[in-house]
Amino acid sequence: MIALGIDPGTATLGFGVVALENGKLRLVDAGCIRTTPGETDAHRLRLIHRSLSTLLREHRPDRVAIERLYFQRNVQTAMTVGQARGIALLAAAEAGLEIDEPTPNEVKQAVCGNGAADKQQVASMVARLLQVGLDGVADDATDALALAIGCCYRAAARPRLAAG
Amino acid sequence: MIALGIDPGTATLGFGVVALENGKLRLVDAGCIRTTPGETDAHRLRLIHRSLSTLLREHRPDRVAIERLYFQRNVQTAMTVGQARGIALLAAAEAGLEIDEPTPNEVKQAVCGNGAADKQQVASMVARLLQVGLDGVADDATDALALAIGCCYRAAARPRLAAG
Repeated sequence: MIALGIDPGTATLGFGVVALENGKLRLVDAGCIRTTPGETDAHRLRLIHRSLSTLLREHRPDRVAIERLYFQRNVQTAMTVGQARGIALLAAAEAGLEIDEPTPNEVKQAVCGNGAADKQQVASMVARLLQVGLDGVADDATDALALAIGCCYRAAARPRLAAG
Repeated sequence: MIALGIDPGTATLGFGVVALENGKLRLVDAGCIRTTPGETDAHRLRLIHRSLSTLLREHRPDRVAIERLYFQRNVQTAMTVGQARGIALLAAAEAGLEIDEPTPNEVKQAVCGNGAADKQQVASMVARLLQVGLDGVADDATDALALAIGCCYRAAARPRLAAG
């Protein structure tokens, strides 16, 4: 199966695509969608929607994980992140995909076995699980890979019903 | 000119369409897009996106006003409203429209001449300006009409440059 993780934001939206094949994780793609601060929110959100729709068509993931954020610094930040998060939810719904909405703690728990792990621990576990170097990879992309890994684990852990 | 006002929300999104013709305001359409609490956010946002896209095709407004909200009760509410607001911004950008993003105070100032007007005063001025009765009309729809009226006023007040 293939999972797409999304760390939502308007200036920088991190994405990570991970495949789980025969119990083994593999990095497929990772990066950031960046938008220009001088542009209107509407244009930035449209760019995000287009870029995510292209990613979804390109990688055809089976599931999407979009971080559920509770602890924003302030209400204005929450509003701005919410706008980008809404676009991510829409793009995934348009693609007809099931959506996981884990909290940051749930992602850390899934990847590090510790819901209080710090950014460095998460990055180091992501690199180890995917057997790749992540030096120079943006935090948002690494976080998105962690989301995708957790999404693969949750899907694999779920009991499968025999098809009728 | 025709303006569409949007009062963003995931459970209830208010919309109001107003025409300004020869200096006179006219009610074109108003109502609410309501989504089901039991559904996922993703499905609710998709319904909102579809409904707004249909409204935009139907009424072909010249401008859209989407309320800019600063004073949410809490961060979680701001996140949820932000998601719906992101969808509204996207739909307007996809339609290639200019977007006003007034604060609630700016809307009250435009419609009532008083940025501290209460809901009742706003509703009463909206009814008077459009020369219609608004009994039984939802608050969100009335607020959206106020947004559309303010949008018409701002567009009319702007100096027009002679076309080359």
